[in-house]
Amino acid sequence: MSRLESFIRRMDAQRRLLNDAMADVADTPGVVLELGLGNGRTYDHIRENMPGRDIYVFEREVRAHPDCIPPDSHLYLGHVIDQLKRAVEDMGRCAILVHSDVGNGDEPASIDFGRTILAPALKPLLLPGARIISDQPVPVEGSTKLPLPSDMHHERAYCYRYED
Amino acid sequence: MSRLESFIRRMDAQRRLLNDAMADVADTPGVVLELGLGNGRTYDHIRENMPGRDIYVFEREVRAHPDCIPPDSHLYLGHVIDQLKRAVEDMGRCAILVHSDVGNGDEPASIDFGRTILAPALKPLLLPGARIISDQPVPVEGSTKLPLPSDMHHERAYCYRYED
Repeated sequence: MSRLESFIRRMDAQRRLLNDAMADVADTPGVVLELGLGNGRTYDHIRENMPGRDIYVFEREVRAHPDCIPPDSHLYLGHVIDQLKRAVEDMGRCAILVHSDVGNGDEPASIDFGRTILAPALKPLLLPGARIISDQPVPVEGSTKLPLPSDMHHERAYCYRYED
Repeated sequence: MSRLESFIRRMDAQRRLLNDAMADVADTPGVVLELGLGNGRTYDHIRENMPGRDIYVFEREVRAHPDCIPPDSHLYLGHVIDQLKRAVEDMGRCAILVHSDVGNGDEPASIDFGRTILAPALKPLLLPGARIISDQPVPVEGSTKLPLPSDMHHERAYCYRYED
């Protein structure tokens, strides 16, 4: 498979994974945390599919498409871990969906960061039943790893449901 | 439609457009010209689907994935118009497929460049029956504009067959 085909399939699988998570939490109150805004395409997708839901974006430096920039009231600007701590102080246990794209896929340092730093920083924000979708492993204590779409490479994304 | 969905559909439509052009010229001798290498995904797709075909890449500065960098013998490095002139001197009328991604979509300066500078620079390289796919209009004299896939926005890509 060419890199072009592989890229399209990966993007499509990520979209399906996100749609599945959004459907799963559709009837449960709670906010959405978007870690890493990037070009803002995923933010736009969540915003369109979860109208009226508060989406809080964590980003070091906003470089998204002008149409995809969250209001200042919903933007945590700075290092993700510092900002998650701020969010805990501001909102406490509040999140029903987390989409994280702050890793470097399967690189060892990224995997280590996800496991030992990001996962515990997320835990105090998660409501029971919260879904996490991430580009790196974030095995939050109390969460269960969920299967990916069958056509998605197992290191392309990680999906969890938090039950604690 | 969200920007994520729109992006996936656009990438997929571009892939289908390219596949259609590759199928159309499959039995006709001639080289491929790739104007703008970018991340190299399209180059990889053409290389995989047209094995044994010479693909000449025109790029100002190579920043592609290491697996998607053409050999020096097939790389025209520099401004695309200067390099197309070099290619005419080296190879003359040689190309059966041109994929161009050097424009800025529907911006006026890009449209003007495509029409008045790129199109005439391409003409002396094209074999009869050559297909052109481009992100900006390149109405080469003697070419016919072809329809896009029905789900593709008419300003997302331009497709031509050269018959002169």
